[in-house]
Amino acid sequence: MNKNEIPYKIYLEENEIPTSWYNVRADMKNKPAPLIHPGTLQPLKFEDMQPIFCDELIRQELDNDTAYIPIPEEVLNFYKMYRPSPLTHAKFLEQALDTPAKIFYKFEGNNTSGSHKLNSAIAQAYYAKEQGLKGVTTETGAGQWGTALSMACAFFGLDLKVYMVKVSYEQKPFRREVMRTYGADVTPSPSMNTNIGRAINEQFPGTTGSLGCAISEAVEVAVSTPGYRYELGSVLNQVLLHQSIIGLETKAACDKYGIKPDIIIGCAGGGSNLGGLISPFMGEKLRGEADYRIIAIEPASCPSFTRGKFAYDFCDTGKVCPMAKMYTLGHDFIPSANHAGGLRYHGMSPILSQLYHDGLMEARAVEQTSVFEAAQLFARTEGILPAPESSHAIRGAIDEALKCKETGEEKTIILGLTGTGYFDLKAYEQYNNGTMSDYIPTDEDLAKGFATIPDVNL
Amino acid sequence: MNKNEIPYKIYLEENEIPTSWYNVRADMKNKPAPLIHPGTLQPLKFEDMQPIFCDELIRQELDNDTAYIPIPEEVLNFYKMYRPSPLTHAKFLEQALDTPAKIFYKFEGNNTSGSHKLNSAIAQAYYAKEQGLKGVTTETGAGQWGTALSMACAFFGLDLKVYMVKVSYEQKPFRREVMRTYGADVTPSPSMNTNIGRAINEQFPGTTGSLGCAISEAVEVAVSTPGYRYELGSVLNQVLLHQSIIGLETKAACDKYGIKPDIIIGCAGGGSNLGGLISPFMGEKLRGEADYRIIAIEPASCPSFTRGKFAYDFCDTGKVCPMAKMYTLGHDFIPSANHAGGLRYHGMSPILSQLYHDGLMEARAVEQTSVFEAAQLFARTEGILPAPESSHAIRGAIDEALKCKETGEEKTIILGLTGTGYFDLKAYEQYNNGTMSDYIPTDEDLAKGFATIPDVNL
Repeated sequence: MNKNEIPYKIYLEENEIPTSWYNVRADMKNKPAPLIHPGTLQPLKFEDMQPIFCDELIRQELDNDTAYIPIPEEVLNFYKMYRPSPLTHAKFLEQALDTPAKIFYKFEGNNTSGSHKLNSAIAQAYYAKEQGLKGVTTETGAGQWGTALSMACAFFGLDLKVYMVKVSYEQKPFRREVMRTYGADVTPSPSMNTNIGRAINEQFPGTTGSLGCAISEAVEVAVSTPGYRYELGSVLNQVLLHQSIIGLETKAACDKYGIKPDIIIGCAGGGSNLGGLISPFMGEKLRGEADYRIIAIEPASCPSFTRGKFAYDFCDTGKVCPMAKMYTLGHDFIPSANHAGGLRYHGMSPILSQLYHDGLMEARAVEQTSVFEAAQLFARTEGILPAPESSHAIRGAIDEALKCKETGEEKTIILGLTGTGYFDLKAYEQYNNGTMSDYIPTDEDLAKGFATIPDVNL
Repeated sequence: MNKNEIPYKIYLEENEIPTSWYNVRADMKNKPAPLIHPGTLQPLKFEDMQPIFCDELIRQELDNDTAYIPIPEEVLNFYKMYRPSPLTHAKFLEQALDTPAKIFYKFEGNNTSGSHKLNSAIAQAYYAKEQGLKGVTTETGAGQWGTALSMACAFFGLDLKVYMVKVSYEQKPFRREVMRTYGADVTPSPSMNTNIGRAINEQFPGTTGSLGCAISEAVEVAVSTPGYRYELGSVLNQVLLHQSIIGLETKAACDKYGIKPDIIIGCAGGGSNLGGLISPFMGEKLRGEADYRIIAIEPASCPSFTRGKFAYDFCDTGKVCPMAKMYTLGHDFIPSANHAGGLRYHGMSPILSQLYHDGLMEARAVEQTSVFEAAQLFARTEGILPAPESSHAIRGAIDEALKCKETGEEKTIILGLTGTGYFDLKAYEQYNNGTMSDYIPTDEDLAKGFATIPDVNL
């Protein structure tokens, strides 16, 4: 098909929205390692997870075999409120770079949560409602996931208790108010509502909290409150399953217009966006039907893929969650406070970890001032102010496009633009004022985190 | 066409985006009164406006005859980055209201400026660039227009000086940072850069500024800086012309799917969104081809249509701008500080004022707590957190839909959803905390504003 016939923004028709999620595990020869119980070191079974997660979500978590899982009709109806998301030809960015490369971005920010997180939030809320639960708990750091789950719970009439990292609760009052507008009960973490919160407050008076601590509190409340379960917005297999809608739509749009990607680029924190975006392409690669370069971009401040260890580790600071085999910096690792770019999680999706370990994808770490430089160029040329997280992928795509400029190659690059930066203007302000700095942990810094990784050899 | 075949969200194809703006003045029997010079009271001619506005924009301002004005290709290319905007069937809102009415909303918030303002900003920046100007000036209150013009100027490589009402500059640092990210020079108003700013600072030490004052400063800088002109985001005829893209797309989507609106509802501050949305429908009405109820919704705190006078008045506090015949509360009128809902301008588009005066449209004033109640319901059912301004239109649409519930009528309502509320969370916080109050000016309050309206009878 002639390139000229491709519109700037490809919107699939409503009836072209995929009606099943794709489970990339079904095509993986080396399956991701199972979650294990930290005490027994045995793989977690359905019953072990029941106090924490919704039943159907546990089934999805454990299912390594079913390739396509139908999207429930009520979830599909909700998807239609903000999906299909556009696949946009970044024509003006290409012009600014003067590159022969073709750049397309799949934009997931056109919804009030401001990111792709809503794709899994609505699915998780649906299964909670189907199970007859009264409510769910979760944690949130920057607030994207908490907002998404607030919207989803409001839609299905579920109660939601959000434990929000205290420093974010105080510095991002607007995120908090969006959640409250959707009816969520938002508590700064560590709180005095939970055993773990009280213990942490006692041990570290005046602490401003961490994501790992907020997870521990949310899980404690879920397991101790009748009619409640806990829900998580990244890392888990079930989340990557739901996020496959991103990749499936991208693939459908490519197929419809004859776009043949050479390189697929996404940012990686816990892996939910990247895993979703690449799923169907990785599936083709695993089945030997096509080949793509797939590149994860992570912050140099929190380099789980590029400098982490592939090992079993805890998913949370409080060690109340199961252990996962993943690329990890150690569950006590916290990026430098001067890191403004998101993607602060110490670990990585077990699925992506396995794929990376098997050499099926690449990873690169980038520094934050170069990320914001890319963000600013993108904003000015493509008219969207990107989230700092998403801007890692933009940086990666620009770097590849500039390589094409050197070599003259006309490669086609697809990048996942996960969301908007409307609630991240503090970070932009630092960049605009020239006060943003870079930070790369030393080997000694990393060694401290590695020392907390438990010695599990399975 | 069967209602069931209408998708939730109607996206026109790229080649269905209108390629001309529609100028409703061409079909008006009673034309809007011309802008006049405050000294001579004579209608302003092209040459009178040249020091302030770009040449081509003056031509558009004065053109009461040409029905269709082609959209320049570069503007059309920019439109394609964020347009067509969706016309969405508010199915879940209808369900929540249990109404037989059909509600559709035209959503203009899916771009980084967060509102419809970008439609005119990109056109105005284009004409400035075509004229070979170095830059433009403007004012901004809440920040939507300033953000939109920043994006537009960045795209065309123009300098931009924004005078931002001081209280907003301080309370909305995030809006300011978006503008700075797009390269705009943002100054709190009143500043010490201008004669009028210095005079106001001297007369009212510690003043936090007003929109009328910021306009005066921006105009002063434009006329005194070589290679600069001033640009304005509402009220003017040229702005309504550019905003007709909203109505033209809406009409095209309705025609494509056989939707026959009975009622069209928009919020009204200066009139840019409402004027744009209704233009082609009003054109049919003026030509006797169809009939629609057209309703402007304004805040009870700033009721220009419902309680203002139809008279010549100044457009700005500093009286440096021309005078316009419009519904006005007096150029010194400032809504109560407890009004959080936007739409604070004392006057109204001369086009809409004339149409309202001629009985071709209705107007209603609503109180802000009822506006935020509507906003919350909309957010929870339709998944979009609306701007306070837009929420006035939602309130109006809900009220009409509830009337349909009483009468059993299956009317079709179209509402203009101008933008998102992501930078208005302070107001939502007030509402969530139950500390928001209503304010309706007394007749005595209004009399003070009316006393400042000059005695001009033309």
